[in-house]
Amino acid sequence: MAVDLDDAFDRIDDFWDPHVAAELNGQHVKLARLKGEFDWHRHDDADELFYVHEGDLTIRLRDDPDIELSAGQLHVVPAGVEHQPVAEEECRVLLFEPAGTLNTGNVESERTVVEEKRLD
Amino acid sequence: MAVDLDDAFDRIDDFWDPHVAAELNGQHVKLARLKGEFDWHRHDDADELFYVHEGDLTIRLRDDPDIELSAGQLHVVPAGVEHQPVAEEECRVLLFEPAGTLNTGNVESERTVVEEKRLD
Repeated sequence: MAVDLDDAFDRIDDFWDPHVAAELNGQHVKLARLKGEFDWHRHDDADELFYVHEGDLTIRLRDDPDIELSAGQLHVVPAGVEHQPVAEEECRVLLFEPAGTLNTGNVESERTVVEEKRLD
Repeated sequence: MAVDLDDAFDRIDDFWDPHVAAELNGQHVKLARLKGEFDWHRHDDADELFYVHEGDLTIRLRDDPDIELSAGQLHVVPAGVEHQPVAEEECRVLLFEPAGTLNTGNVESERTVVEEKRLD
């Protein structure tokens, strides 16, 4: 079955609430609507791909210049690299990462999504 | 560094010639320009994700209805499932699959890309 990204994003109600859209080879494709500043965090054992489907995303890094992504652009944050996603206006991103990766990585906050949500 | 999909596709000269655009967690993000009918094949140990960036793609399956994908849509072909990608007009797709996955899977043809190409 095909997943239509526009349709799928429209079925997500909240910001910073990733939903699994597909699973393959132990990896998850997640969709998330972002707006505002997320927590600084890192994933010790997981590289994380950000692909911007709509809008603009800044990925702040501690020791490197910000990564600026527009629609149709992607970037991989390597495991262990602290980062902070920031979107001034709503931004719709596709994430690719190992199944079980926590959205806030090494940090626990009120935004931590413990129970995985799926788009079915 | 950000990868811009439009720019990256424009740097690929040939059809059916996947280029690695990013690597993460042992997986590859590959970009390919497709046109025409590809070989029927399967990947015994690898699920394969097709995301259409531009154009229309049909994924023919032996025992199930065709999967029709337009820009902004994705589908995962599970490991072991024989499939044939077909694009009447040029279609630009992003593939997610384990590093080392052969484009023609279990089949060897003149389209088999043995040496991995990278977009650098």
